[in-house]
Amino acid sequence: MNFPSSTSAANRYKLMGDDLYKRSEKINAELFTLTYGALVVQLVKDYEDYEEVNKQLDKMGYNIGVRLIEDFLARTGLARCRDFSEVGETMAKVAFRSFLSITPTLVHHPAQPPSQPQPAFSLIFDENPLTDFVELPEEAVEGGLVYAKILEGVIRGAMEMVQTSVEAKIVSDALRGDEKTELRVTLIRHLEEEMPPGDE
Amino acid sequence: MNFPSSTSAANRYKLMGDDLYKRSEKINAELFTLTYGALVVQLVKDYEDYEEVNKQLDKMGYNIGVRLIEDFLARTGLARCRDFSEVGETMAKVAFRSFLSITPTLVHHPAQPPSQPQPAFSLIFDENPLTDFVELPEEAVEGGLVYAKILEGVIRGAMEMVQTSVEAKIVSDALRGDEKTELRVTLIRHLEEEMPPGDE
Repeated sequence: MNFPSSTSAANRYKLMGDDLYKRSEKINAELFTLTYGALVVQLVKDYEDYEEVNKQLDKMGYNIGVRLIEDFLARTGLARCRDFSEVGETMAKVAFRSFLSITPTLVHHPAQPPSQPQPAFSLIFDENPLTDFVELPEEAVEGGLVYAKILEGVIRGAMEMVQTSVEAKIVSDALRGDEKTELRVTLIRHLEEEMPPGDE
Repeated sequence: MNFPSSTSAANRYKLMGDDLYKRSEKINAELFTLTYGALVVQLVKDYEDYEEVNKQLDKMGYNIGVRLIEDFLARTGLARCRDFSEVGETMAKVAFRSFLSITPTLVHHPAQPPSQPQPAFSLIFDENPLTDFVELPEEAVEGGLVYAKILEGVIRGAMEMVQTSVEAKIVSDALRGDEKTELRVTLIRHLEEEMPPGDE
């Protein structure tokens, strides 16, 4: 992709996300919402334990993330991010935009040792096709169900494929009564410090 | 929607489907493919019985269909179909187009008593986001898994909400070695013969 050289860095991510979104094969979001809902309901029925459902969603997400990132890298041709804040920009404005058609608000949390030794960022969701029209029964809230937990796994799996170990965690959840839904992604470590060969 | 009065009936459905597709909220198809795959794998793991997995997919589909049709009717403002062949046109060219971004080939099978007392139609799939990149293990083929079974349920559920009882059945399946995937929809009966009040 080529953008006019005057384009600001932040705007470049947005344009890249828009472009990728336009070029991708798409399906109706409501169908996706309902299919994901059917999956969660099935897990709740099968496991009868919300913590176990969370684990399963996370595991499924991981497997999906590992697959999705290949396609994403192939389609974007993106080089390795220079730092963790660039990871945040790419995730919010290119990945979420092109896959789920939303752009969560991005908040950077630079590393501040010793209280926070590693950099992190938060994705704040005003909208989310996974949770559209969803209301959790009281029992599920009390049981600790994190409905959109699959996202944590997707991010962890995808990042691992680019040699980056992260923790991804929904730290507040509108479905559980919080004011907003916030997913916080914290760098754990780079799994391989060398630059990948080629592509320079 | 208004189309030029010269537009042929068949083309009207296509235009309506295109228009609806453009106006709907959309997400990336591959994400949907992988999420559906995760659902099927989960069911296989839980039930360890392919027939039971088929039943569950069908049941989930039914629940999704019952929900999707509301949105579909609201967005299209379509009146009741005059006959079953119009149901086929609407399903193939408007519903599949707007929800899954595909237009299966439609083949009408008019009623021919006594061998076939009721009208039917077939949807032939050249492509299908549900089954993209999917290959069934031999065991699943032998066990009778119908991977896209959820579609049968979706159609049955949706049609029931417009007072029409149908049988929807994948009668040949490319994933199971058939040359093509064909979903046959047969009218069972109208659940309520009276015209709905209003909307004339």
